[in-house]
Amino acid sequence: MKGSAITGPGGKGPSGMKCTACKAPAEIRLPSHNSKFCDPCFEKFFLNGVAKGLKMVGFPTDAPIAVAVSGGKDSLAVWDALSRLEIKTMGLHIYLGLGEFSDISAAAVENFARPRGLEYRIEKLDNIFGHPLTEVARATRLPTCSVCGTLKRSFINSLTVQAGFKAVATGHHLDDEAGRLMGNLIRHKDQYLDKFYPYLPSVHPAQAARIKPLFRLDQHEIRAYCRIREIEPAGGDGCPFSKGATSHYFQEAMEFLEGKMPGTKRDFLFTYLKSKEPPGDESFGTCLSCGQPTYGEKCGVCRLRERMEKNNRTPDG
Amino acid sequence: MKGSAITGPGGKGPSGMKCTACKAPAEIRLPSHNSKFCDPCFEKFFLNGVAKGLKMVGFPTDAPIAVAVSGGKDSLAVWDALSRLEIKTMGLHIYLGLGEFSDISAAAVENFARPRGLEYRIEKLDNIFGHPLTEVARATRLPTCSVCGTLKRSFINSLTVQAGFKAVATGHHLDDEAGRLMGNLIRHKDQYLDKFYPYLPSVHPAQAARIKPLFRLDQHEIRAYCRIREIEPAGGDGCPFSKGATSHYFQEAMEFLEGKMPGTKRDFLFTYLKSKEPPGDESFGTCLSCGQPTYGEKCGVCRLRERMEKNNRTPDG
Repeated sequence: MKGSAITGPGGKGPSGMKCTACKAPAEIRLPSHNSKFCDPCFEKFFLNGVAKGLKMVGFPTDAPIAVAVSGGKDSLAVWDALSRLEIKTMGLHIYLGLGEFSDISAAAVENFARPRGLEYRIEKLDNIFGHPLTEVARATRLPTCSVCGTLKRSFINSLTVQAGFKAVATGHHLDDEAGRLMGNLIRHKDQYLDKFYPYLPSVHPAQAARIKPLFRLDQHEIRAYCRIREIEPAGGDGCPFSKGATSHYFQEAMEFLEGKMPGTKRDFLFTYLKSKEPPGDESFGTCLSCGQPTYGEKCGVCRLRERMEKNNRTPDG
Repeated sequence: MKGSAITGPGGKGPSGMKCTACKAPAEIRLPSHNSKFCDPCFEKFFLNGVAKGLKMVGFPTDAPIAVAVSGGKDSLAVWDALSRLEIKTMGLHIYLGLGEFSDISAAAVENFARPRGLEYRIEKLDNIFGHPLTEVARATRLPTCSVCGTLKRSFINSLTVQAGFKAVATGHHLDDEAGRLMGNLIRHKDQYLDKFYPYLPSVHPAQAARIKPLFRLDQHEIRAYCRIREIEPAGGDGCPFSKGATSHYFQEAMEFLEGKMPGTKRDFLFTYLKSKEPPGDESFGTCLSCGQPTYGEKCGVCRLRERMEKNNRTPDG
């Protein structure tokens, strides 16, 4: 993959390359910006990219933000960048209980936050819901990723609201968003395009606004930022359930086009976003069982609980 | 590239593979159709694909069709398929005068048409326009591909109308069309999307309808059809000017997605086309200089001629 050609973790730039901003020896080359940067100027570029992103979508830049942190590079980078922009933050990590992967992830969150004096909370999914993730997936006979998504989204939201924050950030970046847009266009998922925007304002008192502050920055840039800021994301093989997700294919196709025509990824996403506004008039209701925000009569979490109970009464034949 | 995995030109199928239609040993595997075919059943499948394509877009299936033939596999395959569907055809080849490439191309057209008793005409571009292509490009200071496109489109149309045909076919296939749709969506070229349809009915007495009968079939399928039908397209390196066209990149990206998720290419294009109708109400006018159909006051060919004359009066320098 060529994409935004960035030097490796060692940060050794091609000899003779000069920073576009300050003329010092440059470490990082960004073909899509037609620029090269030394580490300090790249840091400024990155933080500026986050601030510009918040402004571009109309997010109030001084609002405190909870950060959904998985322990991976993206969520640690967004947390770090927001706190350096002097935005009040709090990290929220849901411990999924998936063995080594979950232990490594929680450790990465703690090892990042403690020395930096950042506020955070780690909550165990089975404590909040009463059952571990694998049991929920088995008893509901639903794919683990689908169950995990429903539970995490709901609990991150309720923890955010409980902690008095009005917005929650995730680490989704340019590649995630451009790939998702491409997938939705190629599969003609018009229903998802309506809510496709990096900022979803709150439309319910128990619903935090959702913001993706890294949507202007790609994974190569995030990797370089983590190197410079000495951020150590969770190592290992990543989530044992995430292999083969089709979303990766669209990101790969986009990255191929970016390598051939630098800037394609940004132009594609930004031109699309510029024709839109933050979606606002969603017809959210309140879950009859638990009071959480929901589209239907009952929220996804309560529906999972009912499905578990029903299937437990009628086990597989 | 995996795409629609088709056996090579030798036609040796994996041992033990059976034809989905007749159970004979199969030579060709089509993952996007979840089918395998022996050569005779594949031929039926291919011709059926062409007939279905004409029907799907509302093209009158008994209308005679002129065929713009370059001498490449796609235009020879569409010509062959239309004539086997008992549609009256006439091949039209514009000899571009680009050296060996043009000689090989014209020979491929003749070698295809003569033994099959198919009617065709070969016209030299510089005879029709009065100047060879390379001179037009130099004198207008425009890219050769742009000049060539304008002249070929216009002359193929006027030759079609002169010969008493009401429609002209080109060899554009599923990969061309899916790639072009992807490119237009990714680059937000809404102005091109309006006219994006494999059938453009005539909207002017001097304008032939345009049809792309192969839009349901991909390049692997066309290659297999050419092998079975013993069609020998022009060999060599292809047009010396076509290297590095960005349209190829979108086709490659699409082919990558097709390899990962067979059927993606077809679903993407067909779902899009199903939401549309043949564009009809174009505001075509008549060129004040030559009487050919045009959007503006003067047609592209007359504008090229004026630009040549103007630049010849004021040489570079």
